[in-house]
Amino acid sequence: MKIYVDAPFGKAAKEMLRAGVHPDICQFRDELEQEEMQRQALAEADILLGNPKRLDWLQQASYLKWIQFHSTGFEYYRDLQTTAIVTNMRGFYAEPCAETIVAGLMALYRGIDRFSVLKRDKVWTGIAARPQLQLLQQKKVIVVGWGSIGKRIAKILEGFDCEIFVYSRSLPEALVRTPEQLIEALPKMDIVVACLPGTDDTRGFFTTQMIRSMRPTAVFCNVGRGNLLEDEGELVDALMQGRLGGAVLDVTAIEPLPSDHPLWSCPNTILSQHTGGGYTDEHGGIVQLFLENLQLFKEGKPLKNQVQLHRGY
Amino acid sequence: MKIYVDAPFGKAAKEMLRAGVHPDICQFRDELEQEEMQRQALAEADILLGNPKRLDWLQQASYLKWIQFHSTGFEYYRDLQTTAIVTNMRGFYAEPCAETIVAGLMALYRGIDRFSVLKRDKVWTGIAARPQLQLLQQKKVIVVGWGSIGKRIAKILEGFDCEIFVYSRSLPEALVRTPEQLIEALPKMDIVVACLPGTDDTRGFFTTQMIRSMRPTAVFCNVGRGNLLEDEGELVDALMQGRLGGAVLDVTAIEPLPSDHPLWSCPNTILSQHTGGGYTDEHGGIVQLFLENLQLFKEGKPLKNQVQLHRGY
Repeated sequence: MKIYVDAPFGKAAKEMLRAGVHPDICQFRDELEQEEMQRQALAEADILLGNPKRLDWLQQASYLKWIQFHSTGFEYYRDLQTTAIVTNMRGFYAEPCAETIVAGLMALYRGIDRFSVLKRDKVWTGIAARPQLQLLQQKKVIVVGWGSIGKRIAKILEGFDCEIFVYSRSLPEALVRTPEQLIEALPKMDIVVACLPGTDDTRGFFTTQMIRSMRPTAVFCNVGRGNLLEDEGELVDALMQGRLGGAVLDVTAIEPLPSDHPLWSCPNTILSQHTGGGYTDEHGGIVQLFLENLQLFKEGKPLKNQVQLHRGY
Repeated sequence: MKIYVDAPFGKAAKEMLRAGVHPDICQFRDELEQEEMQRQALAEADILLGNPKRLDWLQQASYLKWIQFHSTGFEYYRDLQTTAIVTNMRGFYAEPCAETIVAGLMALYRGIDRFSVLKRDKVWTGIAARPQLQLLQQKKVIVVGWGSIGKRIAKILEGFDCEIFVYSRSLPEALVRTPEQLIEALPKMDIVVACLPGTDDTRGFFTTQMIRSMRPTAVFCNVGRGNLLEDEGELVDALMQGRLGGAVLDVTAIEPLPSDHPLWSCPNTILSQHTGGGYTDEHGGIVQLFLENLQLFKEGKPLKNQVQLHRGY
């Protein structure tokens, strides 16, 4: 069995993987110096672990029987024609992503973003900051997208006695199920958490009208997809002009953000730089799921986290 | 009835108070220009709302029948001789203090402190930060001091599936009840949250040995009293040398921190500058409790939040 790995693994994760797949042949893209060797290793592989940049090479990898992405999202690969089984990291990033969003919200409410900058400058403002601080307790929150991240955020926010609303097209209990209902609900919300997957339906889903429907004290969070907003410039303007209270953005339309991007200058904004899913044991966790799925694959059993490329989930 | 107010109230809180105490005479220290007028107003007052700096004046205010502090702690007044009823803001600051500590912890774990500084500098480090991030989920936490703040923090952390241990001298269920037991427990903890009140027993309670008993990855939090540590310099050294993972400090031995204080330079440290109890409606909340207690006082009923000055709680 030939396995081709194109993932940003460090030494520990590679060793864990090599120990687990022995005696299969395991080749890592970043250990193959020449591009041609990389292309060839992928072309001969039975199994792919990771997310190759070169779509053309992947399209030609005709021996592939199984693709395990190291991400949850896979929109980049939606037009790939393949008979391989495809699996993703669904659910795996829920905890870190949920924690990053709650951390960002709490930082805004409790001033931790400002205190971090003051610490760097060694400036004490003390008591003067107190009237600007807010509480997460009992805030009204709408979770837009009821996947694993949204569910986890909602569960954590229960501990703060927040009132949780859900936007979901498919969840029968969701009170907010259409964009029109969402626009109606937004003016009542203190916090809007967008955690939608990257599909055709979610590109530009969050319209300018929706941004304008939020309270001037509301905080907008996005941990789903960078191009969720119909117009990111409208979000920038709303933050700059104080028509919106703040934002916690793990993803943005352009990444990395260029140094002259206006989001850097927006007040009350947390930019977590697409690290929401990260944590110390991240790569070990990916290898672990891969090895579990590899065992199932060898036994001819259904794999965990199977997805349909063209459907987007 | 003469009421003297020495609290950092803004216009809104003052108006709320004036409306509530009408037709009693209400005098605000910061509206009396001359010191002598302030001294005299306090000397003639039946009721004090707030925390006067001048202990000598307070000691001479012999008409006082009731003192309502605007703080939870009142160690500064412990040697005051008075027959007045004394009440504090016990429990009132639990939610904001608990949220500040959790916000600080989450900021450290999810990198929000670093992203805030990067945002100011308009620098994208992106994916490189991911392996440094950690999760609050399932961390082992010891709450040192089982008052309203400690209880609230424990409740919030349950939402992250943390394992909570309690140090308390008086709580029968507490497994950790002596300093010796605490020293034994500390090496097993990921997070240590100190939220002890300011009493004779808690000054210097947290010893150098305790700091040295913590894991090199552990985070130390203090939202109780600034002089809880036997030697704050030991905390600084432990942070600087990486013998301790981080700290969330709402209070410090010296406040305000001078610009050359070493804590400003400690890595993985959140300094919330004694704002833990602050929030937008803070002053309104103080006035509300005062008015409730004023009603009880006039009816000759027992007041809420009575404390003993000399005992410290």
